[in-house]
Amino acid sequence: MASLETIPVQSSSDSLDARTIIALTVFFTLLCVCIIIGHLLEENRWANESITALLLGLCAGAVVMLLSKWTCSVGLEFNEDLFFLYLLPPIIFNAGFQVKKKQFFKNFTIILLFGIFGTVISFCLISLGAYLLFKKIGVTSLDIQDYLAVGAILSATDSVCTLQVLSQDETPFLYSIVFGEGVVNDATSIVLFNAVQSLNSSSIHASITLKLLGTFLYLFFTSTILGILVGLLSAFIIKTLYFGRHSTDREVALMMIMAYLSYMLAELFSLSGILTVFFCGIVMSHYTWHNVTESSRITTKHAFATISFIAETFIFLYVGMDAFDVSNWKASSASPGTSIAVSSTMLAFVLIGRAAFVFPLANLINCFTKRESAKIGFRKQFIMWWAGLMRGAVTIALSYNQFYSSSDSTLSKDYALMITSIIIVVLFSTVVFGSVTKPLIEAVLLRHTKPAISDATDIPSLEDLGLLFLENVEEGDQDGNENRSAPRRSSLRLLITHPTYTVHYFWRKFDDKFMRPVFGGRGFVPFIPHSPTGAENSTS
Amino acid sequence: MASLETIPVQSSSDSLDARTIIALTVFFTLLCVCIIIGHLLEENRWANESITALLLGLCAGAVVMLLSKWTCSVGLEFNEDLFFLYLLPPIIFNAGFQVKKKQFFKNFTIILLFGIFGTVISFCLISLGAYLLFKKIGVTSLDIQDYLAVGAILSATDSVCTLQVLSQDETPFLYSIVFGEGVVNDATSIVLFNAVQSLNSSSIHASITLKLLGTFLYLFFTSTILGILVGLLSAFIIKTLYFGRHSTDREVALMMIMAYLSYMLAELFSLSGILTVFFCGIVMSHYTWHNVTESSRITTKHAFATISFIAETFIFLYVGMDAFDVSNWKASSASPGTSIAVSSTMLAFVLIGRAAFVFPLANLINCFTKRESAKIGFRKQFIMWWAGLMRGAVTIALSYNQFYSSSDSTLSKDYALMITSIIIVVLFSTVVFGSVTKPLIEAVLLRHTKPAISDATDIPSLEDLGLLFLENVEEGDQDGNENRSAPRRSSLRLLITHPTYTVHYFWRKFDDKFMRPVFGGRGFVPFIPHSPTGAENSTS
Repeated sequence: MASLETIPVQSSSDSLDARTIIALTVFFTLLCVCIIIGHLLEENRWANESITALLLGLCAGAVVMLLSKWTCSVGLEFNEDLFFLYLLPPIIFNAGFQVKKKQFFKNFTIILLFGIFGTVISFCLISLGAYLLFKKIGVTSLDIQDYLAVGAILSATDSVCTLQVLSQDETPFLYSIVFGEGVVNDATSIVLFNAVQSLNSSSIHASITLKLLGTFLYLFFTSTILGILVGLLSAFIIKTLYFGRHSTDREVALMMIMAYLSYMLAELFSLSGILTVFFCGIVMSHYTWHNVTESSRITTKHAFATISFIAETFIFLYVGMDAFDVSNWKASSASPGTSIAVSSTMLAFVLIGRAAFVFPLANLINCFTKRESAKIGFRKQFIMWWAGLMRGAVTIALSYNQFYSSSDSTLSKDYALMITSIIIVVLFSTVVFGSVTKPLIEAVLLRHTKPAISDATDIPSLEDLGLLFLENVEEGDQDGNENRSAPRRSSLRLLITHPTYTVHYFWRKFDDKFMRPVFGGRGFVPFIPHSPTGAENSTS
Repeated sequence: MASLETIPVQSSSDSLDARTIIALTVFFTLLCVCIIIGHLLEENRWANESITALLLGLCAGAVVMLLSKWTCSVGLEFNEDLFFLYLLPPIIFNAGFQVKKKQFFKNFTIILLFGIFGTVISFCLISLGAYLLFKKIGVTSLDIQDYLAVGAILSATDSVCTLQVLSQDETPFLYSIVFGEGVVNDATSIVLFNAVQSLNSSSIHASITLKLLGTFLYLFFTSTILGILVGLLSAFIIKTLYFGRHSTDREVALMMIMAYLSYMLAELFSLSGILTVFFCGIVMSHYTWHNVTESSRITTKHAFATISFIAETFIFLYVGMDAFDVSNWKASSASPGTSIAVSSTMLAFVLIGRAAFVFPLANLINCFTKRESAKIGFRKQFIMWWAGLMRGAVTIALSYNQFYSSSDSTLSKDYALMITSIIIVVLFSTVVFGSVTKPLIEAVLLRHTKPAISDATDIPSLEDLGLLFLENVEEGDQDGNENRSAPRRSSLRLLITHPTYTVHYFWRKFDDKFMRPVFGGRGFVPFIPHSPTGAENSTS
């Protein structure tokens, strides 16, 4: 961001700068209003908190604009630092912390397939499309790096908004797929974007794909490993030093700070902070969370969710207000026709880019699935396609990063046009696609599968098999080896036919034998005699 | 603050500025280390988290300094905005939220007496002393406003550090007095400081005292009322809209945001945000907290404490690092002798200024107390005096405000000398007084009163009387008026002799009749059938 005059982070020669205070007051008042309206609209199936925040942000932006007579855009500029350093980490960490790990890892292959390959397919298609079509519309000054960046930017789905319209209880399979895909996709598209930015634009040749893949794999694995290491470290510290003995607040503080630290460390080493903090969240919920006291457990669970919720709402509010940042609209100086043409083209890219990987990949998965009930039907494919169409704050942040920083504060016409078009795409996709998704799911999916209890892919027999393994292992740990051989022999055939469960089974064995004794986790926590929840004997 | 280059809040033309990331990583790593060391030193009676953080900050500051070879002071400048906008509000809110209201309001008269009159006495004495002595040491360029500011700055005790050395269980009376006094003192000295700053330095005449008093009373009452109003509004919204129905996260988010909003609103109207947010915390813990679900209650209680804890540790770390901000030391260019002379004089002022009100006021209270056991003995007076000697971040923030902003970035010699001397006072008082307090209490107080269960002023008969009233009112509400007249008649005599209990009694009646039915509170909450704590059915 070129501007130093951004809202909540501002130094001034006065004690408390009046503008900062006004901006903060306005923002927090709007947040309150958002939460209250969101609560009142809870039962409404068309609206949700994101859309409310976005629309409220738009209104507030318009009001600020009218009051300042189209000249001042204080507080309306999008501040990337604020977004990437303070708002995004808690959201992604909470996503990792609250994810239903069993569902997530059960569908891990599908999630990775969609999140990595899907994003790459979408990225390639959109980059190619932008390269071929933008010149015809009249956008001429972009180079190949910009086209690739557009591909990466428009491939970043908005998992935040997506999840507000999907219900974990009604559609667990879809939820876990779209959720997991969203997180991996976020990471993938940012990794792709970074890889694109780090490419030397003068030396683009055939090895580009290989180079990209190398960077991607390096970032993916190092980031994941860093997140896991920090998570394990937190579990180890809390378990070994037996923190709950003295103070629950210290446990919670340590978890919060180490989670944030994992993100910062990743950024420091130029890795993907999002992937790091996501896996840190998963590890923390698997080990650390079980090592703390009961009240710390409740607190972290809800506090992380609340902070994430506030950050989400804040982002949508911010994106809404940002749409009225006049400097972009002035700088683009494109005719409304061109603007609409570019935005519509981008929207078409988004629709096609997603369709191009959801349907083929889903059918590919179906080919390898033998059980008829485990296949992904067309209706589900359709919903999977639709639920990932929304674009959000990550898209906007990346587009500012690409089209603001490369031009030093004097915004070139085409760059400004890119930013405004992307803002239009984000607003349109969030409001229109977002509000239609919930009713669409009801119409397409739920009314036709009412007799079934849940998604068809939640295969009962396999589920039971999974539980069998888990119980086995846990019993085995307590009762020795006597009653272990029988179930294992009978399940050997199933293990071969269902590799996911094999992996899960060996992971559990490894986890119970080596990881949990060191890092704690469910069933491996030192017993704390009195661990009150603290709700009763308090403020009186 | 004159500098725009302050640590965690920084805008840059790059996506994520490397210096911001490094500073954040360093700070959060140090925070982790502080928490772990603080945990390990928990049983040590000399050290505590504040001192650990302060010393660690000093070390880190020295390391940064050595690495940058005494030239760069990045990340070492004290940023007032960061302190007043983001760190102080959660600490003060949590103080109000967690305060034992019964003890607090029981000793309310003493607390107000100490917090308001004590601070004013200390302020007058220190201002006068500074006026008389500083000229002799060689500080000549200060005007009368500066002397008054020094008085206000050095009268601000550090309640954060004070409370870390007092235990609520061992010495409940002392805790409630020193705690309450610290909060009211914080507010009073900031109000005094603002009043001093708003005075036109050219027109100082006899009406100055009256003017100060007027400003003070106006700020005190409007700030308190604003805090109460925002707190009541939050209680009303959550009770009326029945928030727990849908989501606990939304309740917690609304409480957090409205608490912060109260501070921002106060700052917007140029009131005392600290008083506002403190009373908002009290009202929220009395009404709002009882209106939310069980899990929200646990979450808010611990989350607020944790956030406050992190902010406290951060402040001490920051203050420690700030001591190595070379620009001040360079600008002051005073001889070590002058520096030490000024600092020692200031320390003497602090010691005398506090002694001048603790002992007289305590004896004054003793005169009006008839029961021998309720009187404040000399040992207790001594501890009350000692426990309030520490100076902390508020002092530093105010001194920067006074001696930085009035000189536009080119720091005058004497102003720089003031800042460095105040930093020395803060470091010395926190480390030396702070580490001695705990052993001192044990030596002076606890060893001599071992037979008694708790502080002597916790008069059992009065305590029982208080309980009688409470039970009366609660029974009366359920059983009608029959069994009410008898206890009331017998207690009428006591009511006259103990006005505090009269006030408390009528407040309870008013609260139960008018306030709780509207704003909720204990016993007036709509019944929520299933309000699970959410610790069990979670991340699996």
